[in-house]
Amino acid sequence: MKKILIINGPNLNLLGERQPSIYGDTPFDTYINQLENGSFKITTFQSNIEGEIIDQLHKAEVDGIILNAGGYTHTSVAIRDAVAAIETPVVEVHISNIADRESFRHTSLISPVAVGCIFGFGLYGYQLALNYFKIPRD
Amino acid sequence: MKKILIINGPNLNLLGERQPSIYGDTPFDTYINQLENGSFKITTFQSNIEGEIIDQLHKAEVDGIILNAGGYTHTSVAIRDAVAAIETPVVEVHISNIADRESFRHTSLISPVAVGCIFGFGLYGYQLALNYFKIPRD
Amino acid sequence: MKKILIINGPNLNLLGERQPSIYGDTPFDTYINQLENGSFKITTFQSNIEGEIIDQLHKAEVDGIILNAGGYTHTSVAIRDAVAAIETPVVEVHISNIADRESFRHTSLISPVAVGCIFGFGLYGYQLALNYFKIPRD
Amino acid sequence: MKKILIINGPNLNLLGERQPSIYGDTPFDTYINQLENGSFKITTFQSNIEGEIIDQLHKAEVDGIILNAGGYTHTSVAIRDAVAAIETPVVEVHISNIADRESFRHTSLISPVAVGCIFGFGLYGYQLALNYFKIPRD
Amino acid sequence: MKKILIINGPNLNLLGERQPSIYGDTPFDTYINQLENGSFKITTFQSNIEGEIIDQLHKAEVDGIILNAGGYTHTSVAIRDAVAAIETPVVEVHISNIADRESFRHTSLISPVAVGCIFGFGLYGYQLALNYFKIPRD
Amino acid sequence: MKKILIINGPNLNLLGERQPSIYGDTPFDTYINQLENGSFKITTFQSNIEGEIIDQLHKAEVDGIILNAGGYTHTSVAIRDAVAAIETPVVEVHISNIADRESFRHTSLISPVAVGCIFGFGLYGYQLALNYFKIPRD
Amino acid sequence: MKKILIINGPNLNLLGERQPSIYGDTPFDTYINQLENGSFKITTFQSNIEGEIIDQLHKAEVDGIILNAGGYTHTSVAIRDAVAAIETPVVEVHISNIADRESFRHTSLISPVAVGCIFGFGLYGYQLALNYFKIPRD
Amino acid sequence: MKKILIINGPNLNLLGERQPSIYGDTPFDTYINQLENGSFKITTFQSNIEGEIIDQLHKAEVDGIILNAGGYTHTSVAIRDAVAAIETPVVEVHISNIADRESFRHTSLISPVAVGCIFGFGLYGYQLALNYFKIPRD
Amino acid sequence: MKKILIINGPNLNLLGERQPSIYGDTPFDTYINQLENGSFKITTFQSNIEGEIIDQLHKAEVDGIILNAGGYTHTSVAIRDAVAAIETPVVEVHISNIADRESFRHTSLISPVAVGCIFGFGLYGYQLALNYFKIPRD
Amino acid sequence: MKKILIINGPNLNLLGERQPSIYGDTPFDTYINQLENGSFKITTFQSNIEGEIIDQLHKAEVDGIILNAGGYTHTSVAIRDAVAAIETPVVEVHISNIADRESFRHTSLISPVAVGCIFGFGLYGYQLALNYFKIPRD
Amino acid sequence: MKKILIINGPNLNLLGERQPSIYGDTPFDTYINQLENGSFKITTFQSNIEGEIIDQLHKAEVDGIILNAGGYTHTSVAIRDAVAAIETPVVEVHISNIADRESFRHTSLISPVAVGCIFGFGLYGYQLALNYFKIPRD
Amino acid sequence: MKKILIINGPNLNLLGERQPSIYGDTPFDTYINQLENGSFKITTFQSNIEGEIIDQLHKAEVDGIILNAGGYTHTSVAIRDAVAAIETPVVEVHISNIADRESFRHTSLISPVAVGCIFGFGLYGYQLALNYFKIPRD
Repeated sequence: MKKILIINGPNLNLLGERQPSIYGDTPFDTYINQLENGSFKITTFQSNIEGEIIDQLHKAEVDGIILNAGGYTHTSVAIRDAVAAIETPVVEVHISNIADRESFRHTSLISPVAVGCIFGFGLYGYQLALNYFKIPRD
Repeated sequence: MKKILIINGPNLNLLGERQPSIYGDTPFDTYINQLENGSFKITTFQSNIEGEIIDQLHKAEVDGIILNAGGYTHTSVAIRDAVAAIETPVVEVHISNIADRESFRHTSLISPVAVGCIFGFGLYGYQLALNYFKIPRD
Repeated sequence: MKKILIINGPNLNLLGERQPSIYGDTPFDTYINQLENGSFKITTFQSNIEGEIIDQLHKAEVDGIILNAGGYTHTSVAIRDAVAAIETPVVEVHISNIADRESFRHTSLISPVAVGCIFGFGLYGYQLALNYFKIPRD
Repeated sequence: MKKILIINGPNLNLLGERQPSIYGDTPFDTYINQLENGSFKITTFQSNIEGEIIDQLHKAEVDGIILNAGGYTHTSVAIRDAVAAIETPVVEVHISNIADRESFRHTSLISPVAVGCIFGFGLYGYQLALNYFKIPRD
Repeated sequence: MKKILIINGPNLNLLGERQPSIYGDTPFDTYINQLENGSFKITTFQSNIEGEIIDQLHKAEVDGIILNAGGYTHTSVAIRDAVAAIETPVVEVHISNIADRESFRHTSLISPVAVGCIFGFGLYGYQLALNYFKIPRD
Repeated sequence: MKKILIINGPNLNLLGERQPSIYGDTPFDTYINQLENGSFKITTFQSNIEGEIIDQLHKAEVDGIILNAGGYTHTSVAIRDAVAAIETPVVEVHISNIADRESFRHTSLISPVAVGCIFGFGLYGYQLALNYFKIPRD
Repeated sequence: MKKILIINGPNLNLLGERQPSIYGDTPFDTYINQLENGSFKITTFQSNIEGEIIDQLHKAEVDGIILNAGGYTHTSVAIRDAVAAIETPVVEVHISNIADRESFRHTSLISPVAVGCIFGFGLYGYQLALNYFKIPRD
Repeated sequence: MKKILIINGPNLNLLGERQPSIYGDTPFDTYINQLENGSFKITTFQSNIEGEIIDQLHKAEVDGIILNAGGYTHTSVAIRDAVAAIETPVVEVHISNIADRESFRHTSLISPVAVGCIFGFGLYGYQLALNYFKIPRD
Repeated sequence: MKKILIINGPNLNLLGERQPSIYGDTPFDTYINQLENGSFKITTFQSNIEGEIIDQLHKAEVDGIILNAGGYTHTSVAIRDAVAAIETPVVEVHISNIADRESFRHTSLISPVAVGCIFGFGLYGYQLALNYFKIPRD
Repeated sequence: MKKILIINGPNLNLLGERQPSIYGDTPFDTYINQLENGSFKITTFQSNIEGEIIDQLHKAEVDGIILNAGGYTHTSVAIRDAVAAIETPVVEVHISNIADRESFRHTSLISPVAVGCIFGFGLYGYQLALNYFKIPRD
Repeated sequence: MKKILIINGPNLNLLGERQPSIYGDTPFDTYINQLENGSFKITTFQSNIEGEIIDQLHKAEVDGIILNAGGYTHTSVAIRDAVAAIETPVVEVHISNIADRESFRHTSLISPVAVGCIFGFGLYGYQLALNYFKIPRD
Repeated sequence: MKKILIINGPNLNLLGERQPSIYGDTPFDTYINQLENGSFKITTFQSNIEGEIIDQLHKAEVDGIILNAGGYTHTSVAIRDAVAAIETPVVEVHISNIADRESFRHTSLISPVAVGCIFGFGLYGYQLALNYFKIPRD
């Protein structure tokens, strides 16, 4: 049974309350419990502190990571370096369509080192990321 | 039963032959036939001609479109306008991780008008896009 | 009796349906029939294919061309070259005020080689362009 | 009977004398008297002083304004703000094709707040702008 | 009696010691005690850790926040998102005139989501921010 | 009793009429009369002409100047030079939050030579600026 | 006997008529017949349609291709991708010296994937490209 | 006997008082009276109003103009146009070395249309400009 | 006996494991124990949290600091401000040659406030930095 | 019998030794002796000193020059000026495909003043350049 | 009697022959002999080699230097450093109006460290520079 | 016994005289004689001529080179190419902290091809570079 870690970055603890026109009105925990998880063992981690996200990336012993680095996506070389430094595959998810927002959100420092990117599907993006880990690999 | 149209842009007729280190070695048709299609009715269209892609977007009578505009992704205001002009939801897919290639591939003119974006998962990105259309909507 | 060719570029076949808040809700044909055409002989051509617009510019045997190149306005060196290569005077028209939209629409590659430019007057811009050709020249 | 105010900005008092290869050799007054004015009541105002143009925009009690802001077109946020602040519709005219001159003339700060733009038709641009005001509106 | 939270970002714990030619020689606590606080209940928070500032913004239950994000002002999309995500009004203060320093300090990511900005008045800027909260609102 | 001069630049004579969603609906004179002026002697000056603002800055014999240069804020090296050339302290005020508007409004040429900056508090910004001049100095 | 395909892009069908000061006054066919072709079998293809050029690149079964992509040179990621996708060596030719024309012609998207580039020698550039294919290779 | 007009732009009325470390401490009139004027008839004009400088350029009936446009140097397309529009030769002078000051002072819009430029020699620059007009021409 | 503090930033806890082709395969502790330390008393600190690095810079009571800020090098105005705020001399070290990597690594915000910079010598850079502190100073 | 001068710039004395993967492993002299020189009289000149290349361009009394300016290609306005100053036609050659290398090699200051450009064909580029001079001209 | 050294950079040995429409048709020596030299002792030096110009700046024992660095003006940090390193005052001269030529000629690296700049007066610029040295100084 | 060559570029012959606030007041020869040279055989070379530095790099038969290219650091593709072309390891040294000076000094063309970089330690940087060569390698 594969282990998957979902890491949510800054302000994602407010999901469901914060700017619902952009991020929807479902709290993350409510959503995560109803995922079709395909018999994955899912754990979640949220922090507003950049370095704690890095720590978590370093010490995760899982088969895959789903990372939504929130606002750090666009500014953190350090998180990017952590993603590049570990061997666990990381899928990048964003709830909103970052290409359709302010220009400083158009570039993700994390995308080039992620396995793949899923943007703009709302919370459903986490489901799609999980689907990716269903495929058997060697 | 939902109808889905997959539109592939320039050079994607060469999938399986062209630069396999970037695009893999599976021909598109081989792949498409083995998709878990969730009882969708899938049709495909490929053209190297920008305007034919626009024509196809205009006349598609389907429930959803999966668009991989290939090299036109980065240069075609006209395809972007076509996506914005129609009401059918369009999901953007790229086989390779465009954020990890030449800088002229980092910006997609189509992303801001797509429902969502799926980049870098190889052909599996089409499967993920298809999954998106499984969710019931009103 | 002067002959005038109106060339409409990509997505302009959707006039009247597409984003009416930007482009209005009158189909182009309806409009064109009610132009005060000052006894011109007007023909129209629409294509979503960049190269067909170039072909049309090459072979037009008319006294003036009114060109709305749609999304190709901002990306097509090739249409610009075609306009520069022919001797027929070309007036550039845009329905919307391109200066008041996304920044990638602010620059027209065609403007520098057009006789003159008419932007933002809705379909009435075609009427103004036609007026221009009323002036006798030598 | 509609009232139209034509505002000409800096150096346009020299029309007919200054760089005739760019601006033609007809003085503005000569031209204006022979406009097909469609029974408009036309008044004109010229000033080389940016703030006087703003004053004029504020106090004009007319049905439409035709504005050629000359060199201030490219540098005056203040005139732009004045155009945006009033309710009278403003049509922007330039005698020369600003897209075909020095790059600092390619961008107009005024275009985004104008009703529409007419560039490059020589003095005939004023006639076209006048035509625009012929259309009945509510 | 209104509650106001003052949040000071990185290095502001050194106020009074650090570069007195730029930041003055009064420690923050000394200053804060002598504010004309107009019968506000003022609490203060300082952290050098970006995420702790975000945490604090999330959990503050006050009538207004005065935020000096120090060096994070120019780099933190995450703090900006936190300010945008909460409903408490946030006034941005900087002790020095950031427009008169190195160019990387000229742009504040926080300004666009703040109620208003007060820059360059030394510690007196906090007093001015406090004054702002004196006005009765509904 | 300190003398304070408030200088308002272009279009600010329209306060209360112009774009009330941005600038509010109170005329400047109405507002100024109800300021808590702390026994200042306040005079006001408004001009749409850049050079008259410079003239006024040169000849003001006051203890402080509050300057809202309107649209000239972003384009006038000459007003900046005037502020730098005089010894009277100048506080810069903007009614709207210029950081949250068009990008050409994000940079103020005047900020680097002002004593301090107050942006985005509506007309209340003038009150805050006045408060600044209450502090005794040597 | 080696087979060589010459592909000419948009507007090159006008060679000999169009802007002779830039492109000379010899029609392409006249020129091609008098090439010292070193016993090559030469075929030619011209199209104004970007996608047809891509189609042609895909299906050419020749020993070398000489490509003058005209205006698409500077804008077509899709043609570039086609050149990179095939194994046939492609030599890029331009009749005029693109480095000595408008700045938007200075960059060729095709050069980095071509075998080599020959610019500015007029029609003689095709001869030079042909010479290149004379060298025996393995 | 040649007539020369010296036009000084904004803030140059403060010469001798303003920032003496940059501009020296000699008032302009004091300096001008002691020029070796080579039997020229010199008149001077100073204004802080951009448009009055333009007016002056238009109506000057002299053999040469020496123009120090002050802060308008870097922002005024309108003054540039006036210099280009008249036939009287204009020499550009700056007291300080504009290349050694803030970057927004490095570019002069006026230089390209001036006869020549003299920067950084203090008030002596006016003397050098005057020398230039001593040379007989036809 | 001089006290030296070595501060390592994010991901440097992985030295020896992470991307050995870039960073080598020696763990930091192994290396540090074999330094020719010239009878320095060396302490080390590593954190992935930006603010903890700032805290450490503030409270260090040592004769010199060797700082490798990892990914924060390119993004942290706050660490830069901390280095500028303290009086202890700081030497910047990078293991890899940052000038020969991705362009976002080419600029260090910390270099301008460091005593000096040592880049690209692998772990030996720490030894060189230590050597620097051997020189007697006053 | 035409005289041709080949000028090679900096580091081209190392041809055959230096980075053979980019420049090949044939020394220049070996190559030049086996050129099909079409009964030209060829002389060669190599220097690492920019000014000596300029000297050589000035004093060459030949029918054509083939110039490979090496690293000076991208930085030398002075060599460009020398090429423009002389009347002898100059063909620019580069061994490698400069468009496919570091971005600072993409622009040649010399191309705009050369007769034509030949890039990327290895040493064979010199042969092609020589071919160009075979054509009779008047 | 003051000693003045005139240093001319690359290609200025061709004065009188090279592009006379830009540089005039008088050889430099002819001109220099007829200067009103005000009893200066003038020596001249010309070199096409950047480093020889630096050498000359280092070893000149004169009261003033007039430097026309030709094409090195825009590219040579090394000459700039040499001008900054010596104490002899250096006046920069250019024959043509560099602001009215190609954009790469608009910036002079030397201007910020020169005493003053004289551009665009043809050879007469050297006379003006000489005049500058006539003024007695201490 | 290892042989080390120190190459100093333009203006470094003036060390000890030139701008002592930036470069110190010790002549290079004085310094070099007191280096702890660890039984290296050190030779030095200084030239103001770019090409002579290249010549020296080519012909050096040493175990290591310490290169301070002075002003050529920021402009010389040719020296960079020479460093890349040879096999001897090159350490780049700058006396001043180039990151804390004018922006045109922030980028070194040489850094990416050097073994490592040492900036800002004054003349002591040469000692550090020498230390680097002490390490035994294979």
